[in-house]
Amino acid sequence: MRGVFITFEGPDGSGKTTQIKLLEQYFKEKGYDILITREPGGTKISEQIRSVILDKNNIEMDSITEALLYAASRAQHVAEFIRPALLKGKAIICDRFVDSSIVYQGIGRSLGIDFVKKINDMAIGGTEPNITFLLKVSPEIGLARKFSSHECNRLDMENLEFHDEVYEGYLKLEKLYPERVIGIDARKSIEEVHREIINIINNRLEL
Amino acid sequence: MRGVFITFEGPDGSGKTTQIKLLEQYFKEKGYDILITREPGGTKISEQIRSVILDKNNIEMDSITEALLYAASRAQHVAEFIRPALLKGKAIICDRFVDSSIVYQGIGRSLGIDFVKKINDMAIGGTEPNITFLLKVSPEIGLARKFSSHECNRLDMENLEFHDEVYEGYLKLEKLYPERVIGIDARKSIEEVHREIINIINNRLEL
Repeated sequence: MRGVFITFEGPDGSGKTTQIKLLEQYFKEKGYDILITREPGGTKISEQIRSVILDKNNIEMDSITEALLYAASRAQHVAEFIRPALLKGKAIICDRFVDSSIVYQGIGRSLGIDFVKKINDMAIGGTEPNITFLLKVSPEIGLARKFSSHECNRLDMENLEFHDEVYEGYLKLEKLYPERVIGIDARKSIEEVHREIINIINNRLEL
Repeated sequence: MRGVFITFEGPDGSGKTTQIKLLEQYFKEKGYDILITREPGGTKISEQIRSVILDKNNIEMDSITEALLYAASRAQHVAEFIRPALLKGKAIICDRFVDSSIVYQGIGRSLGIDFVKKINDMAIGGTEPNITFLLKVSPEIGLARKFSSHECNRLDMENLEFHDEVYEGYLKLEKLYPERVIGIDARKSIEEVHREIINIINNRLEL
């Protein structure tokens, strides 16, 4: 029996957390064993790495260091949590995965898609998501939503131009991997976005 | 003006720290601006990463995670410290560098030389040592020396077979890169080893 691996991507404030909770609820009502996780993080070691990445004092951090730390955190997450659960046939929803690294480091930090993809291919060793939901909302709207509700961290302090490039990167990935990356208009209401996600899940996974 | 980049490799207890101090003294007496650094570490961020790698509680750490963390620590070390100093024409001695990752992760952890070399090529971006001194002493002698003088950490707790494979890895690197990797018999006295190192430095670098 093979599990199901679903990831959520999109700018901060695009509603990933809310939609993940609703989808978790839906899976539970259907009687599925569903696990929720997030990146960077997901295991004790991944969280330790996450705290180094997001430490506001680490302003000297080089872009290549950052990309390798995200990949290291992900490697641990996959080896210790995601892969074993999938092998047991479980469903997993992950908040951010390789695509986040590709857009934030590859495009946003100008390291290049190929460079970041190569590092991450080594990190995940073939554990690719079945479906990736890309919640599409402009960075302007996303950041406005986020700043009203959360504390800011180092990455938020980057300027808006950075977030715009990252968003363009997401739209590129939607075109590059149309079979896996499904764009959803996240300006719609929470209920509408959830219904679209459910429809796609039902069509693609035959729950 | 181009700086000089010298690295020291070898099993724990091979005498790297002692030889680095003696070589530093020699450079100083010659009037050179010499910087000493070590891996994993060398910058504040690299030290943070080092503490995650060496944390005795992190027994679940995956080999790929470990290799990526060493590479991340090194990327920061090169970007923030080594490359800028070399561009200013300084001499740098580094205690462990890419070769340590190749033997400890590539061979010792069975990730493969190519896998670990690829990650590290991305991390260092062409900043290769001019000379690497490999202090050759069997792991049995090295560990015996080390355990009498230092506190043990997670990597020391691996069994002796692991250290033997790592040592074989070092001997392979000496054959693979004869122009850069210079093996020194570290069973000799401190003074003899130092004299050999000085002779090679003088022949190769025309101080």
